[in-house]
Amino acid sequence: MRAMHALTERIGVAVLASLPSVEGDDDLARFHALMREYPERGGKRLRGTLVMLATEAHGGDPDEALPVAAALELFQNWVLVHDDIEDDSEERRGRPALHRSVGVPVALNVGDAMHVCMWESLLALTSGPSFDADAIRREFVWMIRRTAEGQHLDLTWVAEGRFADEAAYLEMVRLKTSAYTVTSPLRLGAHASGARPHSAIEGIGDRLGAAFQIRDDVLNLTPPTRDDVNDVGSADAYGKEFAGDLLEGKRTLILAHLFAHLSADDLREATERLAVPRSSRSAVDVAWLLARITEVGSLRYAQERAETLARGALSELADVLATLPGRAAAGRIEALLRTLAARTH
Amino acid sequence: MRAMHALTERIGVAVLASLPSVEGDDDLARFHALMREYPERGGKRLRGTLVMLATEAHGGDPDEALPVAAALELFQNWVLVHDDIEDDSEERRGRPALHRSVGVPVALNVGDAMHVCMWESLLALTSGPSFDADAIRREFVWMIRRTAEGQHLDLTWVAEGRFADEAAYLEMVRLKTSAYTVTSPLRLGAHASGARPHSAIEGIGDRLGAAFQIRDDVLNLTPPTRDDVNDVGSADAYGKEFAGDLLEGKRTLILAHLFAHLSADDLREATERLAVPRSSRSAVDVAWLLARITEVGSLRYAQERAETLARGALSELADVLATLPGRAAAGRIEALLRTLAARTH
Repeated sequence: MRAMHALTERIGVAVLASLPSVEGDDDLARFHALMREYPERGGKRLRGTLVMLATEAHGGDPDEALPVAAALELFQNWVLVHDDIEDDSEERRGRPALHRSVGVPVALNVGDAMHVCMWESLLALTSGPSFDADAIRREFVWMIRRTAEGQHLDLTWVAEGRFADEAAYLEMVRLKTSAYTVTSPLRLGAHASGARPHSAIEGIGDRLGAAFQIRDDVLNLTPPTRDDVNDVGSADAYGKEFAGDLLEGKRTLILAHLFAHLSADDLREATERLAVPRSSRSAVDVAWLLARITEVGSLRYAQERAETLARGALSELADVLATLPGRAAAGRIEALLRTLAARTH
Repeated sequence: MRAMHALTERIGVAVLASLPSVEGDDDLARFHALMREYPERGGKRLRGTLVMLATEAHGGDPDEALPVAAALELFQNWVLVHDDIEDDSEERRGRPALHRSVGVPVALNVGDAMHVCMWESLLALTSGPSFDADAIRREFVWMIRRTAEGQHLDLTWVAEGRFADEAAYLEMVRLKTSAYTVTSPLRLGAHASGARPHSAIEGIGDRLGAAFQIRDDVLNLTPPTRDDVNDVGSADAYGKEFAGDLLEGKRTLILAHLFAHLSADDLREATERLAVPRSSRSAVDVAWLLARITEVGSLRYAQERAETLARGALSELADVLATLPGRAAAGRIEALLRTLAARTH
């Protein structure tokens, strides 16, 4: 765990090194400081860690993969700046979302400037016998396009007051979450060792990414236990208030299952309670929805669906990892993804 | 002029070819249609035309530069999607701004997806003896970073209710407009012929870009003449209502000059009239500001400043162009930029 911790620290330093430094205190210095704000707030840097472990597992030098890991984390950071505007989020990593402190126009432009810094880092990579820079840049294009497509599905459903069925929900998560959380980190790691990624990675990533997202959504609707309350860190570590997803009207597998199993009357009422703007939704609406979710067993269904997806994907992943030369790193990838799939906060 | 027209048509086709095609009528097809919306509305494609003319002037094959010209126009289009959100513009090319029809979240994400398509095109370029793809990609990084920096100055002044003096205004325009309107198009054209751009281009571009922007701002505050009214096309060609800049509170050299020459009482009143949100500003405020602008001669000052900047830059540009092998294309570049600097609508 100490080694993992050192890795995330190194990635964090590399992300900040890829952004303009803050010199002086004029408007441009302030602009550069805003570009560094989300990366400086920290984050788990899970995806960057996966890149470096995957490089090592493929027999490469993880140090060579550090700029790739940093570029992936920079992607995550500029996307969060834009996502927070799109979702009008209040907080990010325990402090106000950027657009809440500097306004939408400035925050949007800060995200664009971070995006181009990511490309600047990627353009500086040079190919060698054990490093495929072109494949890395193409992977970023693939990943960003998919993420934007998934985000569009989510945003357009919210904007038009639509609720996805299970198939549509899984397609959205596959595009929005799986690509940049599992598939691309593992494939980027392979390219940073000069190896060709295993063709099974995308299918594994699709299911693991969906499992992580569903697990997230289940945890959000799971009341805090006495243990969690005593464990002061755990609430912060999860970082979202109980049932906040229902308050936000977030599209989840739980809602997809609920909508497929409600009576006609309850379906109408659920739609009405979720159709009002977020600011008009109350604790009464949330309590009513939670009661229906319990009645039809949507939480249990989603949890089982996540477990099934994770179990199959982790088993297939173990087979892929068993073919790789870096045994220790391969073991850490499997342990990391297994822990994520089963996390309790 | 027919040749120029054919050029802009070809660039328009190439821009659309670099975006996903629309297949079917599901949510993703709709997303791809939104990415194509601004490019399909047209535009002058001035910057892309400059790239291709500059390649020809440097002795290169303009056809080789077509994907570079298209990428530059795609840059312009995604930036406009985001700028329209940042400025909360009502219209773009005669139709509602994208965020006005689909909402800020969807439009913001569409702009991001267009941005990554631009990089996809740029990554597909390959270097050869008469084509420097790496230099082209580095030029895009330089250009986008500068444009975002200039945009930050503009946005942060508006957000904080500040008014720039002349030096700060010129610095903002140099970053926000000059780089992507003149300097980068000319340098991209050189790189697309394998030539090294002349070191004087940046200084020339800085002044010409500023001259164009100031001319734009002067035209916005110049009442339509009887001729213009009779010329049905000209109002549409300019595309903005008279004095709309004052209604928007846009930072211009005219305002910088005005603020430097008002009495203390008038300065306080001008600030108050411009400090209210755009929706609260009235025709009375605009008329009062126009009267003060006439009194202190800000419009005449700005016009003379634009002419001086353009004259010096065009003279220096002629010297640079005289060294290039493609005489006809060099002549068209000079004519195009000279026309822009002196345009009346």
